[in-house]
Amino acid sequence: MAADEFSLIKRYFSNCGAAGSATLLGVGDDCALLAPPVGEVLAVTTDTLLAGVHFPDNSPARLIAQRALAVNLSDMAAMGATPRWFQLALTMPDADQDWLAGFSAGLDAMARQFNCALVGGDTTRGPLTISITLMGTVPAAQALKRSGAKPGDRIYVTGSLGDGAAGLAALEGKLSASVEDCAYFNDRFWQPQARVAQGLELREFASAAIDISDGLLADLGHITEASEVGALLEVDKLPLSQALHRAAGSKLGLSWALTGGDDYELCFTVPANGLAQCQRLIDTGLLSATPIGQIIDGQGVRCVDEDGQSVAVECSGYKHF
Amino acid sequence: MAADEFSLIKRYFSNCGAAGSATLLGVGDDCALLAPPVGEVLAVTTDTLLAGVHFPDNSPARLIAQRALAVNLSDMAAMGATPRWFQLALTMPDADQDWLAGFSAGLDAMARQFNCALVGGDTTRGPLTISITLMGTVPAAQALKRSGAKPGDRIYVTGSLGDGAAGLAALEGKLSASVEDCAYFNDRFWQPQARVAQGLELREFASAAIDISDGLLADLGHITEASEVGALLEVDKLPLSQALHRAAGSKLGLSWALTGGDDYELCFTVPANGLAQCQRLIDTGLLSATPIGQIIDGQGVRCVDEDGQSVAVECSGYKHF
Repeated sequence: MAADEFSLIKRYFSNCGAAGSATLLGVGDDCALLAPPVGEVLAVTTDTLLAGVHFPDNSPARLIAQRALAVNLSDMAAMGATPRWFQLALTMPDADQDWLAGFSAGLDAMARQFNCALVGGDTTRGPLTISITLMGTVPAAQALKRSGAKPGDRIYVTGSLGDGAAGLAALEGKLSASVEDCAYFNDRFWQPQARVAQGLELREFASAAIDISDGLLADLGHITEASEVGALLEVDKLPLSQALHRAAGSKLGLSWALTGGDDYELCFTVPANGLAQCQRLIDTGLLSATPIGQIIDGQGVRCVDEDGQSVAVECSGYKHF
Repeated sequence: MAADEFSLIKRYFSNCGAAGSATLLGVGDDCALLAPPVGEVLAVTTDTLLAGVHFPDNSPARLIAQRALAVNLSDMAAMGATPRWFQLALTMPDADQDWLAGFSAGLDAMARQFNCALVGGDTTRGPLTISITLMGTVPAAQALKRSGAKPGDRIYVTGSLGDGAAGLAALEGKLSASVEDCAYFNDRFWQPQARVAQGLELREFASAAIDISDGLLADLGHITEASEVGALLEVDKLPLSQALHRAAGSKLGLSWALTGGDDYELCFTVPANGLAQCQRLIDTGLLSATPIGQIIDGQGVRCVDEDGQSVAVECSGYKHF
């Protein structure tokens, strides 16, 4: 490879994503210069994806890029913030031009969809690792923290659960399904649709929110811990896709929904005085969400069936160490 | 290792660096929430260090952490911005508690020295990689871009050059020097002193600035390219430390000063109407800087001797690809 770092950056990363007047200076100086809107505070999140850990080796570059940005967008959605800018730390084994073209095309498409821009970063040589730091803004008082849930709040989740784990299992050849269902799981794994628009709606009435990256049980557990409350999770109510029912059956499907992770849906809590507004959004189709339980006094998450009896669950969340 | 990611984060990274009222929400939610001062814009930079590439394998964790933050602080200094917050993407082969204790202690010390705070990040398992995204603030009109140099401006550099390359050579056993000189080079490599305070002073009169990470020739070349000007670099005037003269001699010392990289000093340009103020800062000891050349019409950097004759130089800057 003759191309050096500077020409690579210029070629593939200097006009990536949506341009806007809030970016005073983008890629190419010692720092990017960014102007957050007056009256809003900065929301910042970082997620790292490694080849062979978070996605199979030799996956398509375009999909890797889209997923790397999507998982960060999901954190931004869970805060009720508007994504604006991101930095890319890209470590790669060599500077393959075809790979870089695919990667930057995927990144650009996802960034434009969510109206944010790549403003800087660093490229280094080593095992394929993509670390994105996404910055957005939110009025301080409207940010959706994990710590706001109160006993009596209803618990909701957007979309359907377990598809991300099914997608990974299908990619790894561990799940057999119809061509259509495989394509559905594949999309769900590679291009999770960050619930940014829904996050903005939730600011009006939700008391707490988190995105489901580690699995519903673990992530709802983060809400109960931060809020110093307990939760009853009605497992019969968990939204499972038809594809998941068909391909995995209800038992494995439920296990993936609870502990599989990689779903990038939002789990949020709503106090009594917000339930009507939440239901109105669901009825009008602006919010796709299902009530799945209740915040209670106490601590931890207890899974119950439709009769309120405890249900045993096997494991919780992905552990890196 | 029994410790999972969440307990690791809590134990080693939840109170790292200087706390301040501008951090509304730090480590532990979907996003950090940060309040930049009114009237300033955000300055953001990202640098990644890999074991075996940017520092020798099995280096002390405390030093790795300090260097990882220092190289980002240097970019912030070159923008004339005040560092405030950072995100840490840490990939490591295992969760060794001793290593993590050393790493977080080093990070905490450097962060407190520069009054900034760790506010979030991601930890993953893989080859040791540290990627930091540092955020600071600066009044928009005072930011020190690379693009502001004009013909006639004097070129300055802070501190001394070539010590970073000497430090790496010494670490790799490729340079023999006295115990005292080795200790000096070692400090210069592992704990480069980001010129943040000097960067803030430069905002008053400098027309352009960059930090020297790739080598003076390459980095001054970024200024000439961004500013669409040329530069005459008076190589006899380059500030080399006594230790470098002793250990490497003038020829190798000059080569390292020009192309070695890893110095993390500032190279900046000063128009005629700022020279007196610059000299006053140098005289009072608030700024340690040496005039090393002149911006001219044209393009590229030309090295000249004291008689103005061109001097040949061998290579320029570190190339990752």
